[in-house]
Amino acid sequence: KIPILDRAVYFGDGCYDATTFANNNIFAADDHLDRFYNSCKLLEIPFEMSREELRAELQKCIDANEIDHGMLYWQCSRGTPCDLIPFDKTFRLISMEDTRFLHCNIKTLNLIPSVIAYQRCIEQGCQETVFHRGERVTECAHSNILIIKDGVLCTPPRDNLILPGITLKHLLMLAEKNGIPTSEAPFTMQELAEADEVIVSSSGGLCTQAVELDGKPVGGKAPELLKKLQDAYAAYYAEDTKA
Amino acid sequence: KIPILDRAVYFGDGCYDATTFANNNIFAADDHLDRFYNSCKLLEIPFEMSREELRAELQKCIDANEIDHGMLYWQCSRGTPCDLIPFDKTFRLISMEDTRFLHCNIKTLNLIPSVIAYQRCIEQGCQETVFHRGERVTECAHSNILIIKDGVLCTPPRDNLILPGITLKHLLMLAEKNGIPTSEAPFTMQELAEADEVIVSSSGGLCTQAVELDGKPVGGKAPELLKKLQDAYAAYYAEDTKA
Repeated sequence: KIPILDRAVYFGDGCYDATTFANNNIFAADDHLDRFYNSCKLLEIPFEMSREELRAELQKCIDANEIDHGMLYWQCSRGTPCDLIPFDKTFRLISMEDTRFLHCNIKTLNLIPSVIAYQRCIEQGCQETVFHRGERVTECAHSNILIIKDGVLCTPPRDNLILPGITLKHLLMLAEKNGIPTSEAPFTMQELAEADEVIVSSSGGLCTQAVELDGKPVGGKAPELLKKLQDAYAAYYAEDTKA
Repeated sequence: KIPILDRAVYFGDGCYDATTFANNNIFAADDHLDRFYNSCKLLEIPFEMSREELRAELQKCIDANEIDHGMLYWQCSRGTPCDLIPFDKTFRLISMEDTRFLHCNIKTLNLIPSVIAYQRCIEQGCQETVFHRGERVTECAHSNILIIKDGVLCTPPRDNLILPGITLKHLLMLAEKNGIPTSEAPFTMQELAEADEVIVSSSGGLCTQAVELDGKPVGGKAPELLKKLQDAYAAYYAEDTKA
């Protein structure tokens, strides 16, 4: 059995290798060990067992079996659970080219690029990473992103490039209810940099103001509208979860 | 704990949803249940628990806790283990646009697009799916792909679009040793269709001849070269795993 909090189970956050064995000998063991250690390195997983220790463990698995030929599989995950994103703080953002697959509208467990992108922003003392495909903004590592420009709340299109956030849906609904027009259309990194406000949304951080992007100040030019949205969301949340 | 053979652990082959709760009430439960059932549908995972049963289970989790607010997470995986690909048979192939991420050189657990692509070929009575980005051939769902053309063994470049197969590496090495020249350069779907032989390689199916692509015959025009490679690999395998 696998520990319930293992990151392989939640993010597919690990790597593996597999080969066959015959006469109780591992086929091409060195090649597969080379690739396995390289995969760990590329994913920045500190795998501490030495090559010879791992080889001995794999041989033990084979020897412990009745059969003398078959398939041998091993994997390593990042192991520890992640923290929740705090609720009420402003975010500093970095940006990164979006190299994910074209099925981002499905909430799958294939989350390694998001995991790596989030790690990058943490390393720089920031709280989220904005993905873009070329100039076009998609979303953040674990959140959606919106902007306010000239009084309009703008989201990128909810196509196969972004997750259709529940919180994003609520923000659009609450904006309309409160007389703030909304727009669902592509916007660029340049438009993000020049927006009146930049908003990061997720189920763990409903309507968070971003104040910096790649080291430069962003937003802060429509604080009343932002406050209006945050207050509306707080009321909506309280009503939906009232005792 | 999680069953050791759960497909979430090996392929990230599942979906999830998460929301917060307060005063023991799930926030936006209907929105999150909508999206969760839609994710299951998009991944073609038959999730049999009814919406009301699931809602009751989630409420039970919350009620069983001491705390009255926090984060609620649930996931569903495809559950059952996969079969090994048989060693000695010819393959029939289908093709599909490659929508995976740009990190295919790392042997990660983020394998959902491969899982779905493999499912598609099985449904059509075939054994593998060839991925292509536009016209350029990359690899198969769980294997590399090579062609023989005018006496040369050709592989796509081992860049970030394909996994650097150990078996692929051996085939190139064995070809050179046996006087068969090799090439590592992009080739197109058209070139695949017109190749002298089409070879599918993986650790579980070392050098398998493909005889059909999208319903049309392929290869079969250089059987001696193919046999030479297969024999060389059989000898190499036997030597590496000898008793």
